[in-house]
Amino acid sequence: MAKDKKMVESITARDVDFAQWYTDVVKKAELTGYTSVKGCMVFKPAGYAIWENIQSELDRRFKESGVQNVYLPMLIPESLLDMEKDHVEGFAPEVAWVTQGGLNELTERMCIRPTSETLFCDLYAKDIQSYRDLPKVYNQWCSVLRWEKTTRPFLRSREFLWQEGHTAHATAEEAEERTLTMLNVYADFVEEFLAIPVVRGRKTDKEKFAGAEATYTIEALMHDGQALQSGTSHNFGDGFAKAFGIQYTDKDNTLKYVHQTSWGMTTRLIGAIIMVHGDDDGLVLPPKVAPTQCVVIPIRQKAEGVLEKAEEVTAALKAAGIRVKLDDTDRSPGWKFADQEMRGFPMRIELGPKDIENGECVLVRRDTREKITVAISEAAEKAAELLETIQKEMLERARTFRDEHTWEASDYETFKKTIEEKPGFVKAAWCEDRACEDQIKEDTRATSRCIPIGPAGEAKEGAVCVCCGKPAKKLVYWGRAY
Amino acid sequence: MAKDKKMVESITARDVDFAQWYTDVVKKAELTGYTSVKGCMVFKPAGYAIWENIQSELDRRFKESGVQNVYLPMLIPESLLDMEKDHVEGFAPEVAWVTQGGLNELTERMCIRPTSETLFCDLYAKDIQSYRDLPKVYNQWCSVLRWEKTTRPFLRSREFLWQEGHTAHATAEEAEERTLTMLNVYADFVEEFLAIPVVRGRKTDKEKFAGAEATYTIEALMHDGQALQSGTSHNFGDGFAKAFGIQYTDKDNTLKYVHQTSWGMTTRLIGAIIMVHGDDDGLVLPPKVAPTQCVVIPIRQKAEGVLEKAEEVTAALKAAGIRVKLDDTDRSPGWKFADQEMRGFPMRIELGPKDIENGECVLVRRDTREKITVAISEAAEKAAELLETIQKEMLERARTFRDEHTWEASDYETFKKTIEEKPGFVKAAWCEDRACEDQIKEDTRATSRCIPIGPAGEAKEGAVCVCCGKPAKKLVYWGRAY
Repeated sequence: MAKDKKMVESITARDVDFAQWYTDVVKKAELTGYTSVKGCMVFKPAGYAIWENIQSELDRRFKESGVQNVYLPMLIPESLLDMEKDHVEGFAPEVAWVTQGGLNELTERMCIRPTSETLFCDLYAKDIQSYRDLPKVYNQWCSVLRWEKTTRPFLRSREFLWQEGHTAHATAEEAEERTLTMLNVYADFVEEFLAIPVVRGRKTDKEKFAGAEATYTIEALMHDGQALQSGTSHNFGDGFAKAFGIQYTDKDNTLKYVHQTSWGMTTRLIGAIIMVHGDDDGLVLPPKVAPTQCVVIPIRQKAEGVLEKAEEVTAALKAAGIRVKLDDTDRSPGWKFADQEMRGFPMRIELGPKDIENGECVLVRRDTREKITVAISEAAEKAAELLETIQKEMLERARTFRDEHTWEASDYETFKKTIEEKPGFVKAAWCEDRACEDQIKEDTRATSRCIPIGPAGEAKEGAVCVCCGKPAKKLVYWGRAY
Repeated sequence: MAKDKKMVESITARDVDFAQWYTDVVKKAELTGYTSVKGCMVFKPAGYAIWENIQSELDRRFKESGVQNVYLPMLIPESLLDMEKDHVEGFAPEVAWVTQGGLNELTERMCIRPTSETLFCDLYAKDIQSYRDLPKVYNQWCSVLRWEKTTRPFLRSREFLWQEGHTAHATAEEAEERTLTMLNVYADFVEEFLAIPVVRGRKTDKEKFAGAEATYTIEALMHDGQALQSGTSHNFGDGFAKAFGIQYTDKDNTLKYVHQTSWGMTTRLIGAIIMVHGDDDGLVLPPKVAPTQCVVIPIRQKAEGVLEKAEEVTAALKAAGIRVKLDDTDRSPGWKFADQEMRGFPMRIELGPKDIENGECVLVRRDTREKITVAISEAAEKAAELLETIQKEMLERARTFRDEHTWEASDYETFKKTIEEKPGFVKAAWCEDRACEDQIKEDTRATSRCIPIGPAGEAKEGAVCVCCGKPAKKLVYWGRAY
């Protein structure tokens, strides 16, 4: 048992050192590996399988909303990156440059895509001539590269995996509608599939994407009270269209610029899952995204009939569509329990000679540790129900946590004190002046996370800016962030 | 109707200029697009959807055989690429080099992966210590880059999409077994899913992969009689393990090198589908890989009840699990027929007022043009049956074509004449001397495609080398190739 305990003990407690806890979980759950390529990470099977589940579900939702997948080159010639002014200013300092191809120096250097707006614009400029060619609602799954200085698994890495949608529309209204449609696809996905509640809002001008007219975001709250931007959707207006000359002949025979959007989600979502749901025993995966949903662990597996019965239960769960594994290795049950908990599989089934005698087995929830004894004949049915319950309650718990860590402040002293002492979001009114936003960041290291969509984002009648005291216009979520 | 015809007429006939026919099909079926990135291609929705279907089915088969997916960095530091001598010699001349990251020159340049053997070895050297850590059966889906000078859509492109499996095993036997298992997964997939018959064989030493002990291949025959290498599986022995120091402690407590394999398939398979099945009217997709399997085309769609009935049929097919689309655009039926044929959708359903009066509709096969009248109430059932028939018969036809274009030669004059005059494979005995292989290539531009696996690859008693006349050892498939 000393060895069993050791496995668990070697994780730092969340409340002692959250950053170290995170690193420990990522390592012990074998989500990522180290590599000789500085700043980059290896997605190991357990980590990549989570991404595969995210990808498959998100892709299904995309296609339902009319998205088509494509694949564009990973290299961008410098002249193409340079075409939109804000965009190149935003990205040029953090790209990797290819200067040699084969045995020759290139006449024009190319960067590895940090994002593909310019490539999509290049394609659309060629492919869009008429209103009949619109809309284009394309997406690609790929990896991108940004030359980050400090990196952390999933949260900040030079290379990461993502999807990037890029669309072109006939009108500004249609572009805005697509921008918000995708924001809602993201928000629903994160809440329903990852059991993470989010705030849907608009970024301030300071925080918006390089080249965008408006950036929308979903913001989630991690266990340590820091925010994580979990998906963004941008409305470009016709800025890129003008820079790249993307025009179409409308029904009235006049030449018009298209209106564009882009939207992306990344492997950073895996970091969010870890930091919202994990606990001091390791990872806790919501059932829907868990590559393994249940582990069957035989107790005294060498006793007659135990392994056989465990195999039977495993087969029954599998037949019910549950992603289940039987752990019949030669480790002790205690080791297997700790291992299952560390890896975050949502439930396990314990099954020993005595249980079998009684025709029973024990379902154990990863999230609450609750043990539920059920008839073996009903194990699959009860396990399926339990997985649904776990999914639902994980979202509820995360929402309660988020709500209990969302504060309000109407004067600057309270604001600063809250940011400093109470981890979480702080809701406070703002005059819309960039100077106040800068001041707040300098004083507190908090940034504007978003302005909620709709009436919730408007400052109340008579409210004043939390920083300067002048009349406020917007209600903003502020917080320290990853 | 002049316009309808024009669409078809603008494709060059296969037998007039096969290369131009290929280019025309790729363009008119909208599989790829051009880009400002030289040597690279855009996978448009119709092309990428084929790759998604390939990927999803192949991945399912991989996982059934115990494969786990991972993701490794896209960059390889030069010192890592340099570690295995044959490998670096094979790849260094054709990689793209990153020399600048962010605003700084790199102290060590890095190449964009042309393949990831070295990265997997780097990972395995860190992660493998004990026999308990074996086997590792990892795969990744990604894009790779090779600085090709002349490029053609799908067949040869600087950047292409692929999967690369990399495994590590305790014994040489287990590595050889995995190499052949994956070759068979590939062959079965290509035959069953893409309806393309293949020859399974081993590459000669001249043609094997840089760093491999043995390379196995599946070779397919295109309509113009040229061969296409369609998937390869390599046994590395312990060569990479020794170069990278990948050792494990065995059960007997001694330190041993692992034995490794790698295997890959690429988007070039899409080229194979086009060149095996396509005809003078465009693409012909086997039903299993076709993103759209059936198009419902209403005739006189403005007539009362026609569109309604067409929607009904479409819904019935969809409910039966068929990937179906209704073409209710304002084009003429003739235009829609030509469009469906060009895009290679395996069948269409024609449905007009008269058919509806009779309670019937017409199923039209893309591959044979056969028209089959069926009751509307049975349309879904009959369509499902027809798709199965088409899949089966496309493979049979391709196999007959392949067999009718596989020749034999026992003397050099016949061999050279056959290669020159009869498109296809030539089976001929060989002494196993590299000099003869070089001579044959110089004289005929044909290369050794493979030595069939098992007894079929052994030269018959008393056979002589087709080139030098000395006693032959192997029976080789020769041919000109893409």
